[in-house]
Amino acid sequence: MSQGHGKAKRGIPSKIDNFNEWYPFMVEAAELVDKRYPIKGMDVWRPYGWKTMKLIDALTHSEMERTDHEEVRFPLLIPENLLEKENSLVAKLKRAREEGVDVEDLREEDEEGGFKKEVYWVKHAGDNDLDIPMFLRPTSETAMYTMFPLWIRSHKDLPLKVYQTVNTFRYETKQTRSFIRVREIHFFEAHTAHADEDGASRQIVEDLEIVNNLMHDLCLPVIKAKRPVWDTFPGAWYTIGIDAIMPNGRTLQVASCHHYRDQWAKAFDITYENLDAQQQHCHQTTYGMSERLLGAIVGMHGDDNGLIMPPAIAPYQVVICPMIKKNSDVDTVAISNDIAKQLRANGLRVKVDSRDIRAGQKYYDWEIKGVPLRLDIGPRDVAQGTAFACRRTGGKLPLPIDDIVNACRTVLNEISDELRLRSNAHMDDVIQPLPTFEEVDGTWVMNGEIEDGKIYEMAFDGTDSHAEVIERATSLNFLGDATEDYEEDRPCHMTGQMTRRRILLAKTY
Amino acid sequence: MSQGHGKAKRGIPSKIDNFNEWYPFMVEAAELVDKRYPIKGMDVWRPYGWKTMKLIDALTHSEMERTDHEEVRFPLLIPENLLEKENSLVAKLKRAREEGVDVEDLREEDEEGGFKKEVYWVKHAGDNDLDIPMFLRPTSETAMYTMFPLWIRSHKDLPLKVYQTVNTFRYETKQTRSFIRVREIHFFEAHTAHADEDGASRQIVEDLEIVNNLMHDLCLPVIKAKRPVWDTFPGAWYTIGIDAIMPNGRTLQVASCHHYRDQWAKAFDITYENLDAQQQHCHQTTYGMSERLLGAIVGMHGDDNGLIMPPAIAPYQVVICPMIKKNSDVDTVAISNDIAKQLRANGLRVKVDSRDIRAGQKYYDWEIKGVPLRLDIGPRDVAQGTAFACRRTGGKLPLPIDDIVNACRTVLNEISDELRLRSNAHMDDVIQPLPTFEEVDGTWVMNGEIEDGKIYEMAFDGTDSHAEVIERATSLNFLGDATEDYEEDRPCHMTGQMTRRRILLAKTY
Repeated sequence: MSQGHGKAKRGIPSKIDNFNEWYPFMVEAAELVDKRYPIKGMDVWRPYGWKTMKLIDALTHSEMERTDHEEVRFPLLIPENLLEKENSLVAKLKRAREEGVDVEDLREEDEEGGFKKEVYWVKHAGDNDLDIPMFLRPTSETAMYTMFPLWIRSHKDLPLKVYQTVNTFRYETKQTRSFIRVREIHFFEAHTAHADEDGASRQIVEDLEIVNNLMHDLCLPVIKAKRPVWDTFPGAWYTIGIDAIMPNGRTLQVASCHHYRDQWAKAFDITYENLDAQQQHCHQTTYGMSERLLGAIVGMHGDDNGLIMPPAIAPYQVVICPMIKKNSDVDTVAISNDIAKQLRANGLRVKVDSRDIRAGQKYYDWEIKGVPLRLDIGPRDVAQGTAFACRRTGGKLPLPIDDIVNACRTVLNEISDELRLRSNAHMDDVIQPLPTFEEVDGTWVMNGEIEDGKIYEMAFDGTDSHAEVIERATSLNFLGDATEDYEEDRPCHMTGQMTRRRILLAKTY
Repeated sequence: MSQGHGKAKRGIPSKIDNFNEWYPFMVEAAELVDKRYPIKGMDVWRPYGWKTMKLIDALTHSEMERTDHEEVRFPLLIPENLLEKENSLVAKLKRAREEGVDVEDLREEDEEGGFKKEVYWVKHAGDNDLDIPMFLRPTSETAMYTMFPLWIRSHKDLPLKVYQTVNTFRYETKQTRSFIRVREIHFFEAHTAHADEDGASRQIVEDLEIVNNLMHDLCLPVIKAKRPVWDTFPGAWYTIGIDAIMPNGRTLQVASCHHYRDQWAKAFDITYENLDAQQQHCHQTTYGMSERLLGAIVGMHGDDNGLIMPPAIAPYQVVICPMIKKNSDVDTVAISNDIAKQLRANGLRVKVDSRDIRAGQKYYDWEIKGVPLRLDIGPRDVAQGTAFACRRTGGKLPLPIDDIVNACRTVLNEISDELRLRSNAHMDDVIQPLPTFEEVDGTWVMNGEIEDGKIYEMAFDGTDSHAEVIERATSLNFLGDATEDYEEDRPCHMTGQMTRRRILLAKTY
């Protein structure tokens, strides 16, 4: 198979039939990344891919500004001794859950968390062995919560809302995939501290609003689910996972929010003086997203001709191709440049492709890169006062040159709407009711079959061991409780008890 | 000494008398960084500092776009085996210089470069020892030039011009200083490949133009000097260092450009097919800058009341302080917000400080942070249709509210001009002619004294051993040949030979 790099012609794998080949082919053919860097899971971002990622970041940052978060930048390296607080917290919570007691009631013990197994270690610098080993951040709780006690003194310092977009690292032993499972991760993380549980809970509501705004722009429908206990982030009271749906029906967690209550604050001694001059522990949240957003965009919107970039984050929203005819005296290049100038002056991202190559080659290149709107400028179109528009989502139409800015905006909006329509239809198509279960002679039997490529929902009111039965029988994972319950009571698929709890299950990335 | 954090009142060290205390005090008092993170030389960027740095980056990025560079993002980690090519190159060049022969004529030998002593090593991940150790990039030649051969095939792929802004690492054993000498460095690097030496040389000219544009915006005069051979970047044909001048007369290298000729291309086998269908090695350049730019801004422009931010990169260019008088029915807060809205709509960065605290405290806070223009909005001013403007560089004047946008722009331009005037005056004041030298009975004697806090220039036509004599006698470093020679011949300070070579010497950071 050709590696693409903008020169691929034939042999594009089919997205529907063979998504596992289509995806890696396309991320390289569209020049998002180059996977030939000599460390697995650490790709080189090429200019087109990086531009796209930065436009996604820009949307995130503007949501952060709107909601009064401030941007910070923490060091990458974290000394091992800081991790001890965190490990002890995580291990305690785990033990408390296993023993069915409150964290406060646990005996003190030497605890050892599991985080250490997933990080890269720096134990040497120059010719020296370091006294205190350091690790590359997998995420920044430990680094940040070491500083928070220095920044938070009184209730006036709350809420504290900070964020950063940084490289994080994970020693990934599973198979790597560009954007989806990588070892150096382009990562966004917001961390907040509040006076009480309510304040933190309101933050989670705001986070989910931000998710909605972003996903609208990215034209991605997502599932928001409160993860089951066994899939809650270490140290969190609860975790809400935000899952995009890939064409093969697998879900991809693209974001998550965690409500920490005061658990981390207790481990890191993050307190403030309240109105009664008493020291109180903060309640905290985090909200994380990553380059997986780009993976979801590639997977959800692309087709057999290449990517389709949602206009909100397309590096080029419009590509203009002047048709160069030898026997014409119409200067289509000059006209194209003039149109580009108008569009750019109105905030659109535009590329003029005046390369002296076959039109077919140009079309091919920009289709693979997923530019949402192409304008062909030929002498005959110009004579009629129009540019010939081709939507990347399908359909061609002439646009009036003398109202080209409004015309392009309208078409771009239509393309966004079309992408939303398609991806919502895909989601509706993919989500199915899970068969019910029956206990027959002490064995649970599923009344139906699980179909490949589907996501399942059910009313559920059972226990963790019921959940285990279901996961084993279906080979699916509990995504958790959908943030929106059923509107009316329904019988639990295991126990028959009436409930509104809507549980989602899927094969996950 | 109080650590500041926005609450410092008294005890600000004097900048002129005690720059070595003023500087670290001010970077924390203005809330640029927090140095209390538990690894020396790895500061936490606080929101105000990070905003400033991002505005500096934005200027750089817009220069990169203007000059057709494309942004990429390479992995942080570099496998050790890739370094071997580089080490061998560097060691060879060093040996060739020492032996006075051409690189090509050297015997092959097992070479060992010095880079390894300055990097952080990752040799462990999770519970595993890595087969191939990796190091954290100190700069990205090795990572990039591993990929360049895959991207460059023919002359049509040239010039290749890429850049990135990333975290780099250096195992610094000297005393660390915020922005100036740190272990995690916020770093900009542009890398280019050209068909021939001329192409690469033209790139260096373009780089120096970019330097000029940036330094104009930052109001920083700089010295551009072709470094002496012993201070040339490893693997470079020549290096041009760009040095800012600190108040204590020390120079701070804030940027550098390197012309590599085809030396790296030969080590990394970066070739292209020329018009005659022959494989030829590329010629390459790099251009680097770092957070030291911010260090220079802090040092050059600040005063005993705090920072002074050049308007081009001030996070807030204007701060508006409504005067809240209890017996007035003029809503100064509403008027302030209205003015802010107008200014923002015209692209200015504005903060309204409507905190219910003493005006003096507000002034103090914004002076320390270096906001260039403050507008006080009191009932009496409003009655006269004016806002009362205070320039951070000194001077107060009323501005007409009904033409506030133009008025603010004018004052901000005046402030930039004033900063340029001051820093140029400082540079002119600091640069002195070096005393001449005379050989008396086989010993070199300097005809004068070296003054502390000064930079020296001289006409020079001597040898490396003359240079060594000068460096030893003066305790100064050769910055190198100024990019602008003397306009007429002058006698060399050592040999008396006539020359236009203008050499600069200084104490350096």
